[in-house]
Amino acid sequence: MLKKIHHVGVVVPDLEQAMRFWRDLLGLPVVKTAVVQDQGVKAALLKAGESEIELLEPILPESGVGKFLARRGGGLHHVCFQTDDVKNELRKANEKGVQLIDQQPRAGLAGMICFLHPKATRGVLVEYAQPFEE
Amino acid sequence: MLKKIHHVGVVVPDLEQAMRFWRDLLGLPVVKTAVVQDQGVKAALLKAGESEIELLEPILPESGVGKFLARRGGGLHHVCFQTDDVKNELRKANEKGVQLIDQQPRAGLAGMICFLHPKATRGVLVEYAQPFEE
Repeated sequence: MLKKIHHVGVVVPDLEQAMRFWRDLLGLPVVKTAVVQDQGVKAALLKAGESEIELLEPILPESGVGKFLARRGGGLHHVCFQTDDVKNELRKANEKGVQLIDQQPRAGLAGMICFLHPKATRGVLVEYAQPFEE
Repeated sequence: MLKKIHHVGVVVPDLEQAMRFWRDLLGLPVVKTAVVQDQGVKAALLKAGESEIELLEPILPESGVGKFLARRGGGLHHVCFQTDDVKNELRKANEKGVQLIDQQPRAGLAGMICFLHPKATRGVLVEYAQPFEE
């Protein structure tokens, strides 16, 4: 079962510049910043109620996020739902014939994560995340 | 102050078909459906924790949502933050030189609402909403 929107992913060309809007104007508090080398992104997580806005600046142009930036100039990239059992959600999606990006959950910024294929949803990239135990 | 993500707006070509993914596969409960003639959309709101997913099917091709569908084929359209004082948030944004779509709050599906211009955020359409008193 999906419990909440864990985060909304936003691709930005420049993280520091984006912060002027999301942190300074909207007033969303920064929870975490990180460089995730293997995904090719600099990221910042900002709190909005029980959810977060995840700002993603690509550091590798050939990454998925890098290609999105080149194609679109940035913008809303994905929506991530929190679950207690990412493996089970992925199995259910697979059984219903939903196209997947990840065949198995993997470690990501938000915990154990996986992505469904945007073809499954007519263009919306959906992520499931099961946060790591604190 | 922004309290939470009120909803994430998703443009879909066919609401009934979209429900098969968002309601039936993801299991998000439907809170409300509505036809909003003056915005040219059929809408469904689905609950995800304290937030909602707002599915929008355009019924008028010349509406903003209709043009988005024609250009992109659907996808993540906007993110809406809940506030107790939409008028004050709009004034603050205006004072900081943020480009606005709405100069004044107006009645919308989520309460009194307004949109900032996506130019302000490098391509993300941001909405503020102050829900109507119950």
